[in-house]
Amino acid sequence: MPNQNHVFESTFNALADPTRRAVVQLLSHGSATVSELASPFSMALPSFTQHLGVLESAGLIVSRREGRSRVCSLNPEALKSAEDWLARCRREWEDRLDRLEAHLATTAKENRDE
Amino acid sequence: MPNQNHVFESTFNALADPTRRAVVQLLSHGSATVSELASPFSMALPSFTQHLGVLESAGLIVSRREGRSRVCSLNPEALKSAEDWLARCRREWEDRLDRLEAHLATTAKENRDE
Repeated sequence: MPNQNHVFESTFNALADPTRRAVVQLLSHGSATVSELASPFSMALPSFTQHLGVLESAGLIVSRREGRSRVCSLNPEALKSAEDWLARCRREWEDRLDRLEAHLATTAKENRDE
Repeated sequence: MPNQNHVFESTFNALADPTRRAVVQLLSHGSATVSELASPFSMALPSFTQHLGVLESAGLIVSRREGRSRVCSLNPEALKSAEDWLARCRREWEDRLDRLEAHLATTAKENRDE
């Protein structure tokens, strides 16, 4: 699925930066304006809004204009997609280990019974 | 937690690349040698082993020498940490929405009852 793959590229790339992860964590507590989000960071506003742009392009946040402010919100579905991808890989590995253990246990029992 | 933050930086940066995500998916089906892993990719071996190095530095895979081969395996704990971080942010957001909905429902009922 090349499109899905492209989405994960943007998602994981967006989350690789500490400022952007901090924004995601801040937004998990509720929507906030750009200036509210920017205030904890000692960063020039243009650099900060570039980070927001990366998060928005990756679909991790959405924003809307409210009067003179821009309000940002988290998009939980993008987090869920990345979470599901990681969980699928992990479970596949763990299930395989479980099957291997079960197989070894059966073989050991067969050897004892012989 | 600066150390944990540094770990996520390596994890998400490693997963931002399509070749490295494909390696993680391949390894979810079981351990494999470097040459087995490299075979589906039309890439020079030094470039491919660089990708493996990024995954190993990020703790997503581990490798061990077996005779003349190097065998790679997935480290499910690194996947789980990233998965948990995403899940915490998403649940925090969803719980907040649930509380907001409950509050609005209570307020609407109070207005009706007045």
